[in-house]
Amino acid sequence: MEYSIASDLPTPALVVDVDAFNKNCAAMDAIRPDAQLRPHVKAFKSTSVARRLADQGHRGFCAATPAEIEGMAKAGLGHDLLLANESLDLARLGKLDANVTVAVDSDAILDAAVAGGVRSVLIDIDVGLPRCGCDKVQGARLAERARKAGLEVRGVMGYEGHLMMTVDRAERIDKVGQAMEILAAAHAEIGGDIVSAGGTGTFDTNTWCTELQAGSYCLMDTHYSELDLPFEQALAVVATIVSVSPKGWIIGNAGLKAFGMDHGSPTWDGPGKVLFCSDEHVTLRPDNLSDFAVGDRVVLHPGHVDPTVAKHENMWLINGDLANEGTLVDQWPVDLRHW
Amino acid sequence: MEYSIASDLPTPALVVDVDAFNKNCAAMDAIRPDAQLRPHVKAFKSTSVARRLADQGHRGFCAATPAEIEGMAKAGLGHDLLLANESLDLARLGKLDANVTVAVDSDAILDAAVAGGVRSVLIDIDVGLPRCGCDKVQGARLAERARKAGLEVRGVMGYEGHLMMTVDRAERIDKVGQAMEILAAAHAEIGGDIVSAGGTGTFDTNTWCTELQAGSYCLMDTHYSELDLPFEQALAVVATIVSVSPKGWIIGNAGLKAFGMDHGSPTWDGPGKVLFCSDEHVTLRPDNLSDFAVGDRVVLHPGHVDPTVAKHENMWLINGDLANEGTLVDQWPVDLRHW
Repeated sequence: MEYSIASDLPTPALVVDVDAFNKNCAAMDAIRPDAQLRPHVKAFKSTSVARRLADQGHRGFCAATPAEIEGMAKAGLGHDLLLANESLDLARLGKLDANVTVAVDSDAILDAAVAGGVRSVLIDIDVGLPRCGCDKVQGARLAERARKAGLEVRGVMGYEGHLMMTVDRAERIDKVGQAMEILAAAHAEIGGDIVSAGGTGTFDTNTWCTELQAGSYCLMDTHYSELDLPFEQALAVVATIVSVSPKGWIIGNAGLKAFGMDHGSPTWDGPGKVLFCSDEHVTLRPDNLSDFAVGDRVVLHPGHVDPTVAKHENMWLINGDLANEGTLVDQWPVDLRHW
Repeated sequence: MEYSIASDLPTPALVVDVDAFNKNCAAMDAIRPDAQLRPHVKAFKSTSVARRLADQGHRGFCAATPAEIEGMAKAGLGHDLLLANESLDLARLGKLDANVTVAVDSDAILDAAVAGGVRSVLIDIDVGLPRCGCDKVQGARLAERARKAGLEVRGVMGYEGHLMMTVDRAERIDKVGQAMEILAAAHAEIGGDIVSAGGTGTFDTNTWCTELQAGSYCLMDTHYSELDLPFEQALAVVATIVSVSPKGWIIGNAGLKAFGMDHGSPTWDGPGKVLFCSDEHVTLRPDNLSDFAVGDRVVLHPGHVDPTVAKHENMWLINGDLANEGTLVDQWPVDLRHW
């Protein structure tokens, strides 16, 4: 690493608070130790993070793209990789030196798995999110076809993504239960050892799955922070103030190319508020303009971790103050980007 | 290139309609030939695109980040590069084998330019957008300081970004005129040959600037399409349908990691509508579900070109049908990414 303290880092810099990261991992591990968690690499897109989680006992991973699976295999983390998504691009995965399972919800995807040399599948069940997944009748038929073709059917998966942001805990428990009853009914017909489901938002309320698919919990974002979760915001983008206007605003050099914007603008520790983002700028209105000068650094928290991380080449792990005097302890390449 | 037709491309694929691109360039050149346009590389982030524009007579470029300037210099396109943005990271630019001018709106930025070995500046004037730029009094003072330090003051710049989306043309002309009167007044005090301003939205209504800073026009997005501009949407993302639900939706494998989302979800040629994007999915509701099968390809147009391009490694230039039978004519690496 070329840098030793946070203020050495060129900005915009994607930074991780080591203390918050470690606390988040511990909070998850208390509820979902070892194989009860299958971390989702789409949230952090880094084999460096994955390796830390594997060292903590989570040796199986899930991913959203073939490129993420390839990257994990290449990094020697191919013990048990699940493409928790439908893809036709499966010949890339069948040839890897890794144990790869893929999600299947149609004959076309199953055909691609067979043709691509993939050796095991999970049947993806629609549990209420308008996305991938089939019903249990189709699922049982696909499982039978897969077994006849010589593939292992390891079980079922179903993502209750539509319930991740249910704020009221009792309502969340109730609705997750209803969604998981659909998955359990499918599992009863399909068989296999695995019921893979859930995410950060339902990490302790989805008590039905044998393994939880969660990734955001370790870095966290402002969106998930609206819930009653025991996870802190460990991820931030540090920007340098490049302009101060006497009209009352200051400009940071991190804009909408540095943040996932689908959950809106980032939040600022302040004191003050975020006005808007341009491509390479964030316009902030501080409570006291005289507190800021060109060259100062500000810490901004992204609304959505996953697409934010995907925009950067590296994460920088920092002990202490993220923008200035904190100690740089590691560099995590974001090496699972693209498709 | 490994591919010959559009349907060979792995998806999600960022594609450019060659015919629309050429028409867009011609429409701009008719109003802003040669040095009257200083294309903004932030919109397309590719030296391949920049080289085409240089061949069309636009040899000066502007950029939003030091990395874009470095990339242009490295590609031999350093004839006249303007960092149209404030940065403290200017030692990177002063040492380049290229003619680099930087925007300056404060003593701190000017100090960084001098210390970094940058040899020429534009004074950045606030013309109404809450972002960078100073007033003419500060601007004249900075110009004097710059000249005393041995730097060339080439003129002024001012970005009327707050007026880009003024839909009514007469109102746009009026307001742009008011903004440019501020810039002209500053120019009168500061001197130099250049008045650099504008963007795609004001390409023919900003008649005050000596050079227009526009980049989106050649690729275009759905946001700018709301105006009366003579530019077509040349940029799209092609997705493969990976799941079809009997409940009435289909799922494409391009999500919010493939699109700039700050102007909302992409639009779909259809027939049908876009329901929502997830990280790696777009859920579409087609008018006729039976028209679609797993493996079909759909064409989606991004709301905002600049951050969309920044998420991809390559653009693929296609003659004809973007998703299927069109001929692949070129590959443009998106080589000006990051900071």
